[in-house]
Amino acid sequence: MDAQKIIFLFILLVPLSSATSVVDFCVADFNYPDGPAGYACRNPANLTADDFVYSGLGVAGNTSNIFNASAFLAVDITFPALNGLGLSMARLDFGVGGVIPIHAHRVSEVILVIEGTIIAGFIGSNNTPYYKTLNKGDIMIFPQSLLHFQVNVGDLPALAFVSLNSASPGFQTTSFALGANDLPTDIIQKITLLDAAQIRQLKTVFGGTN
Amino acid sequence: MDAQKIIFLFILLVPLSSATSVVDFCVADFNYPDGPAGYACRNPANLTADDFVYSGLGVAGNTSNIFNASAFLAVDITFPALNGLGLSMARLDFGVGGVIPIHAHRVSEVILVIEGTIIAGFIGSNNTPYYKTLNKGDIMIFPQSLLHFQVNVGDLPALAFVSLNSASPGFQTTSFALGANDLPTDIIQKITLLDAAQIRQLKTVFGGTN
Amino acid sequence: MDAQKIIFLFILLVPLSSATSVVDFCVADFNYPDGPAGYACRNPANLTADDFVYSGLGVAGNTSNIFNASAFLAVDITFPALNGLGLSMARLDFGVGGVIPIHAHRVSEVILVIEGTIIAGFIGSNNTPYYKTLNKGDIMIFPQSLLHFQVNVGDLPALAFVSLNSASPGFQTTSFALGANDLPTDIIQKITLLDAAQIRQLKTVFGGTN
Amino acid sequence: MDAQKIIFLFILLVPLSSATSVVDFCVADFNYPDGPAGYACRNPANLTADDFVYSGLGVAGNTSNIFNASAFLAVDITFPALNGLGLSMARLDFGVGGVIPIHAHRVSEVILVIEGTIIAGFIGSNNTPYYKTLNKGDIMIFPQSLLHFQVNVGDLPALAFVSLNSASPGFQTTSFALGANDLPTDIIQKITLLDAAQIRQLKTVFGGTN
Amino acid sequence: MDAQKIIFLFILLVPLSSATSVVDFCVADFNYPDGPAGYACRNPANLTADDFVYSGLGVAGNTSNIFNASAFLAVDITFPALNGLGLSMARLDFGVGGVIPIHAHRVSEVILVIEGTIIAGFIGSNNTPYYKTLNKGDIMIFPQSLLHFQVNVGDLPALAFVSLNSASPGFQTTSFALGANDLPTDIIQKITLLDAAQIRQLKTVFGGTN
Amino acid sequence: MDAQKIIFLFILLVPLSSATSVVDFCVADFNYPDGPAGYACRNPANLTADDFVYSGLGVAGNTSNIFNASAFLAVDITFPALNGLGLSMARLDFGVGGVIPIHAHRVSEVILVIEGTIIAGFIGSNNTPYYKTLNKGDIMIFPQSLLHFQVNVGDLPALAFVSLNSASPGFQTTSFALGANDLPTDIIQKITLLDAAQIRQLKTVFGGTN
Repeated sequence: MDAQKIIFLFILLVPLSSATSVVDFCVADFNYPDGPAGYACRNPANLTADDFVYSGLGVAGNTSNIFNASAFLAVDITFPALNGLGLSMARLDFGVGGVIPIHAHRVSEVILVIEGTIIAGFIGSNNTPYYKTLNKGDIMIFPQSLLHFQVNVGDLPALAFVSLNSASPGFQTTSFALGANDLPTDIIQKITLLDAAQIRQLKTVFGGTN
Repeated sequence: MDAQKIIFLFILLVPLSSATSVVDFCVADFNYPDGPAGYACRNPANLTADDFVYSGLGVAGNTSNIFNASAFLAVDITFPALNGLGLSMARLDFGVGGVIPIHAHRVSEVILVIEGTIIAGFIGSNNTPYYKTLNKGDIMIFPQSLLHFQVNVGDLPALAFVSLNSASPGFQTTSFALGANDLPTDIIQKITLLDAAQIRQLKTVFGGTN
Repeated sequence: MDAQKIIFLFILLVPLSSATSVVDFCVADFNYPDGPAGYACRNPANLTADDFVYSGLGVAGNTSNIFNASAFLAVDITFPALNGLGLSMARLDFGVGGVIPIHAHRVSEVILVIEGTIIAGFIGSNNTPYYKTLNKGDIMIFPQSLLHFQVNVGDLPALAFVSLNSASPGFQTTSFALGANDLPTDIIQKITLLDAAQIRQLKTVFGGTN
Repeated sequence: MDAQKIIFLFILLVPLSSATSVVDFCVADFNYPDGPAGYACRNPANLTADDFVYSGLGVAGNTSNIFNASAFLAVDITFPALNGLGLSMARLDFGVGGVIPIHAHRVSEVILVIEGTIIAGFIGSNNTPYYKTLNKGDIMIFPQSLLHFQVNVGDLPALAFVSLNSASPGFQTTSFALGANDLPTDIIQKITLLDAAQIRQLKTVFGGTN
Repeated sequence: MDAQKIIFLFILLVPLSSATSVVDFCVADFNYPDGPAGYACRNPANLTADDFVYSGLGVAGNTSNIFNASAFLAVDITFPALNGLGLSMARLDFGVGGVIPIHAHRVSEVILVIEGTIIAGFIGSNNTPYYKTLNKGDIMIFPQSLLHFQVNVGDLPALAFVSLNSASPGFQTTSFALGANDLPTDIIQKITLLDAAQIRQLKTVFGGTN
Repeated sequence: MDAQKIIFLFILLVPLSSATSVVDFCVADFNYPDGPAGYACRNPANLTADDFVYSGLGVAGNTSNIFNASAFLAVDITFPALNGLGLSMARLDFGVGGVIPIHAHRVSEVILVIEGTIIAGFIGSNNTPYYKTLNKGDIMIFPQSLLHFQVNVGDLPALAFVSLNSASPGFQTTSFALGANDLPTDIIQKITLLDAAQIRQLKTVFGGTN
């Protein structure tokens, strides 16, 4: 091989490489504000393999809460390499009887059961519920924006992982949305037809006022 | 002008025109099933201006229902010219005290108040409520997938129109999603922390069972 | 309820909430330059319901101009909460005989007539015109990028609102594009086949030179 | 190598391959109607390399028309392999003094000059014109939806190719849109401020009526 | 509650529900050809929860092949509910020393290690490799279109799952692409700089000719 | 014409124009970091036609390298006006026998042959090769993410231009990806089944180590 030729080749390719390496990925730089498409990109020259690996989902969540369950997220702000790449994950730990309460988000989600037996389901916009018992190795798809939930119905703790097609999927839990704020009880009553006593109870549980 | 030249020009442009006229718009052809991007397109040669106009929103909705309100939609299946163009509308009529109950959909929505005084609001995914009294001419934006609602707080009926950036925006109303189906009460209880009596009441109101 | 458990739950949810609240919406921060997907986001902690409401469309436009009409826009730079959410609106006021001249923009538009009688139309890319008289309550869709127009043909002023599926839809009015600049008359003549005298007249009306 | 192992490997990969080969590309099948995202896909098993090559742009266009120019398109309906892949091309031939009249389309375009000297330009939505003389090897970008044009200003014929980021870019030429149809002259007058005589002349040139 | 009012309400909501239920999800109907956005949708009235659950990833793959590994896909053609929802998954089983050979696909991928210790990595477009040892619970992101690989470096079999943000992600394995077809050896030699003997060996292993 | 009326008209249109001119285009401002959707926009007030024209593709590339070919890119970092507009181009010069080695990128590409005779081809994800001899004026489409190549098979130098539907398409050349870095030879061996000697040779040619 002619070293001289190879040098020419590399000169040729240098601008090409720098042009494109930036956009292979866009690890979030939190020195700038977020934008509609995500965060600005860190300089790729300062990145290593460690930036593309996240170990936070390897740790069991603390399920000592009212739902006997926990959700731990790998999203852009916890795992910045996801920024701009359209994917995130979460680890779901369920104590016995544990529940991920009914919630929705902007994007679709697929759940994978690793341990245990859960009932998982979603509700269509015509109010049809689709729910089923899932065992180890089963996956289920929850279409974007539809309310969905998971309940551990086995005798043992359960473990599942979910993947979502956004680095920042959003996450709105219905009972929290109603009970964890100061939206006046009479408005909540009108927009839900729940009883005032029930609403006040939700507010007590979730820390809301009014 | 040289007619001969013009003829050449038209010959030139005929394939061009037919190539592109199809994709200017894609009025839904319901002879084929829906797809992820919407319905197949009707042959543009059979379309007239009438296909691009819809008068269904000009009629006041019947508000004689439990919410004293009505929502009438101009979406792809009622106004097929919207197919593939990323827009839809709805007319909201409110009787005195009328309410559009809390709901969400895949896409963002902007509301325009034409008559009356309403409180409109949405709840962020960190449970912060953003709500305000709107008067004639005010607009408010409801970001995609977040729970939102409107309540007529004036002394007279109110009228508003909303626009959404999809021809098929979806529409999931929380209390209907919980009460208008056969999802077992004990599951609903676990995933909402509502009382069983409250859930049974919602099921009675909205026609659900179990 | 066990307060201890609730505390654990809230600890669990804090990172989740902060992760997602940013991206529920992205109210434009004009301290940074625009980008291909819109402006950077203001810190959501500093936002209130007021940021999501705009009253500018409630005021009748001044139609004392050559077209006896006005268009007032609620777009990202006038209503920053629209940034990143894919929607904008405009109020169209028409004096008697008022006209919104033929124009186009990147995105689709739906018009809603509130008062009066107008002729609205668009021209397909194969040059077919689709136009029709619209009355109160009628809506019409104008597909993206196609030339369209509205003319008040009633005996009274007219009022309409349009919605567009971008927070920054662009807006190119044909006669302004030809007449309101210094593009040389001989070039305009060649690219339009208009007469030089006609072009000079457009330039006089719209303030162009050359 | 162990043939047995290889057989296992192939069994493993057969479903994988068939799963993905369909969606590598989607050569248009005109037996089904178009849809918002393009045409249905032909069975890849029936495709050969010939389906991915198009020779139609190798032939000089006939410029014997009123504009002394021609545009020949490689778009989805002439080159079906483009379907779904977001690209198209056109060949522009210019006689001496030839002109591609002012026009716009939904998507962005880049022009590459192969022979000759042309003036190319576009007009921003604030009516600013951006135009420049281009020589062999120059490229210029025309942003989506903005009016643009090309004029051969050299002493010889010119040749250029354009690329657009849609398989079906649309194409609306201003003077054709006004003159090549039966839109009434008085409406055109109002929406353009052109004189009636000028409009009638355009209609004569482009074959319109009324 | 007034039953009469509820009836009105339901009449109101019936068209709404049918409008939107179709587009909550779009389970693939293989009676129609694929399109650029995916398959046509099955009638939602015929769907049950079973359609949204897939158990194929619960079964260990057969790793008795040359790579001592297997990849089993849950994509649109094996799990039709994924159609149009932008997500798919795969199960990766590794025997001791098992390898998922270097490959790429159109979309981004996140891997989750369930058992064992693997080295996973990708190569940027400036040829920088990013690779690291992953243990149980670790996740790593592979940006779209970049070459990536996994190698079991532990003493035991390993298990991992990957998620991708398309229902039909594509999958091109470099050595298969070069060796499993009849592309002439001399062409492969020129476009890779591999030796002819090496290429013939790949063709022998992967079943190619020429 | 009534100057007074025109003044009113211009007052009306000033905010409109400033609103939309920003987003007609977004010439990259390299004072800010890249983001997932591209670079921030320069102030349009400082731009001229020169910013939208690039002459770098008019110069023949230096083909004195191991592949007897060169690729010169017009992408966002070399031609900043492309930023956000979804298009880029490259000029390919081939000496006699010149080769663009097998590579892939995130987006689709169309090639146009200007001079000479080349064999161009791509390999589907089921390993089917699609290749053909192309002559002057021929175009060929290479679907996104699939490996493709070009070889000059004529007796003279060849020239081609390619267009891609991203301003930053990425570019990963297989042999460089394997040989131009320090990825250990034993890992490369496992993930490609290439012989160690072959890999060491690639590393020598492309400057890799290990």
